[in-house]
Amino acid sequence: MKKFMNRADQIVAESLEGFVRAHDDVLTFGNGSRNVRRRQLQPGKVAVISGGGAGHEPMHAGLVGHGMLDAACVGHVFTSPTPNQILDAIAECDTGAGVLLIVKNYDGDVMNFDMAAEMAIEAGHRIETVIVNDDIAAYEAARSSGRRGVAGTLIVEKTVGAAAEAGHSLEELKALGARTVAATRSMGVALRGATVPESARQTFSLGPDEMELGVGIHGEPGRSRIAFRDADAIAALICEELFAELAAPRDSRTLLFVNGFGGTPVSELYLMYGAVRKLVEARGLVVARSLVGTYVTSLDMAGLSVTLSVLDADRLNFWDAPVAAPALRWGC
Amino acid sequence: MKKFMNRADQIVAESLEGFVRAHDDVLTFGNGSRNVRRRQLQPGKVAVISGGGAGHEPMHAGLVGHGMLDAACVGHVFTSPTPNQILDAIAECDTGAGVLLIVKNYDGDVMNFDMAAEMAIEAGHRIETVIVNDDIAAYEAARSSGRRGVAGTLIVEKTVGAAAEAGHSLEELKALGARTVAATRSMGVALRGATVPESARQTFSLGPDEMELGVGIHGEPGRSRIAFRDADAIAALICEELFAELAAPRDSRTLLFVNGFGGTPVSELYLMYGAVRKLVEARGLVVARSLVGTYVTSLDMAGLSVTLSVLDADRLNFWDAPVAAPALRWGC
Repeated sequence: MKKFMNRADQIVAESLEGFVRAHDDVLTFGNGSRNVRRRQLQPGKVAVISGGGAGHEPMHAGLVGHGMLDAACVGHVFTSPTPNQILDAIAECDTGAGVLLIVKNYDGDVMNFDMAAEMAIEAGHRIETVIVNDDIAAYEAARSSGRRGVAGTLIVEKTVGAAAEAGHSLEELKALGARTVAATRSMGVALRGATVPESARQTFSLGPDEMELGVGIHGEPGRSRIAFRDADAIAALICEELFAELAAPRDSRTLLFVNGFGGTPVSELYLMYGAVRKLVEARGLVVARSLVGTYVTSLDMAGLSVTLSVLDADRLNFWDAPVAAPALRWGC
Repeated sequence: MKKFMNRADQIVAESLEGFVRAHDDVLTFGNGSRNVRRRQLQPGKVAVISGGGAGHEPMHAGLVGHGMLDAACVGHVFTSPTPNQILDAIAECDTGAGVLLIVKNYDGDVMNFDMAAEMAIEAGHRIETVIVNDDIAAYEAARSSGRRGVAGTLIVEKTVGAAAEAGHSLEELKALGARTVAATRSMGVALRGATVPESARQTFSLGPDEMELGVGIHGEPGRSRIAFRDADAIAALICEELFAELAAPRDSRTLLFVNGFGGTPVSELYLMYGAVRKLVEARGLVVARSLVGTYVTSLDMAGLSVTLSVLDADRLNFWDAPVAAPALRWGC
């Protein structure tokens, strides 16, 4: 295994160190190990905090910034941050209006964020939680109860982050987060598994003519292993399930998000975007907004996910609102 | 070879089609095949046009937008656009103040852009050209005369694009481009070669303990094949040569750009950024600005380049100026 690293057990710390140095005009390490937060916190604004295992970069730390997250708690590779680590972020970022936690639906994350929330409430903080479970290809493994939180998490963080910036209350943000989750569905496909630094092994291994349909972002295999096929056929497979799940009426405005898993070139993402967009429009849906790029990854896995989120006027405005995070930036 | 594509000979056209659809609020196809331009051209502004072979996405098409390029001409994979194609872009984008061409130093690109410039001048356009040759590891192959243009091209395009937006003349832009090239040096390293869609073969193949030092972005092998080593050692190898070439005095302000080649996760890029930055600062140089990400690629090659550009006050301001291209965005 060849990776740009020194010691495998230092890869998360060293990568995060470089990340914070590159963006230290606006970001800084927070209290607790591996917490990244905005340099300037805004008094009276609800703090929006997310986090999870490392290996999904640029999410979540790359999504900390004006209009999005206030802090991200980073665990080891594919491992939840600890309750104490999350509690440190809450204590530091709560400037009086409470804290909204955005948590991907994996047992480890849900358990640790829940424990942190309990401890924080005991310490006098107001805490609410939004669980993201946009992946329609649930995988019944030990680490996941029901549907997983995958690339749609970025849409929830962007939407809720914009509303928090606009002064919405903790209760309003929780409701907005839940509405966004309900309107958002994703499905992923992999052409090559991820290589985990500490084990130097691929999380799953595919033959030269195989692909994995319905993969998550923690190295778990997908729902089914199928024969590799061309882009239009892959787009059709994914869209069929997304359309059935979302059941959006004709002329619904949608956000179409094609997300790379880490080892897939942007040219291929755009090619798939084109293929998927044709199908979305043929279905009678309107692609009102688009995002194409490598945002929610599984180390160096080759593959991508397609996320479709139905927009109402509110959520369209929150999506368009200015954002200035290292990995997502417009309007400011 | 598994890639997200339909037919190998359609990969460039289909990817570009998806790209333009995703960004059609600000970009559009220009006249001529595979030219991408801003939807709104600005009368009286010098037009800045670049281009080259496909396979380097998001460059150049992803760098078209306010504050950067007016148009990009895209060739087949690793193949220059044609003179007529470039001429089409010139004719369409020249709004009266002339056209600056930014060309990477590869024989094919230089020849075709030169022919286009001659034809355009004959047709009455004012044309100047900036040749970018930031790669310190020149490789004496058929397609390159002297040093190659690699990731530093993005810095030249950003700098000159900002000055064009600010109303600078064609001659001023040419001089600014030349100064930026002279102040900018890059060096690349690969852990795995690129897979070319049409041949389905890797451009070069490395053993499990080998790396390629001094690679370009057209699938050519590098200057030397060496034993794989850790991130700090790779950073030291690269920096030693960059420092010797740039010979910048102590306390010089620099822009440090760590660029992924397509198959390398952003977490590894940040880890290398941290390692390089320590060495740059130990050398007595100031890292005034940073860019870390996947911008100038070689299909799915695993590897990265480090670019160091010495900034004067002018170039610092042009770097900071607003830019709104699909792949580079801040300040607007």
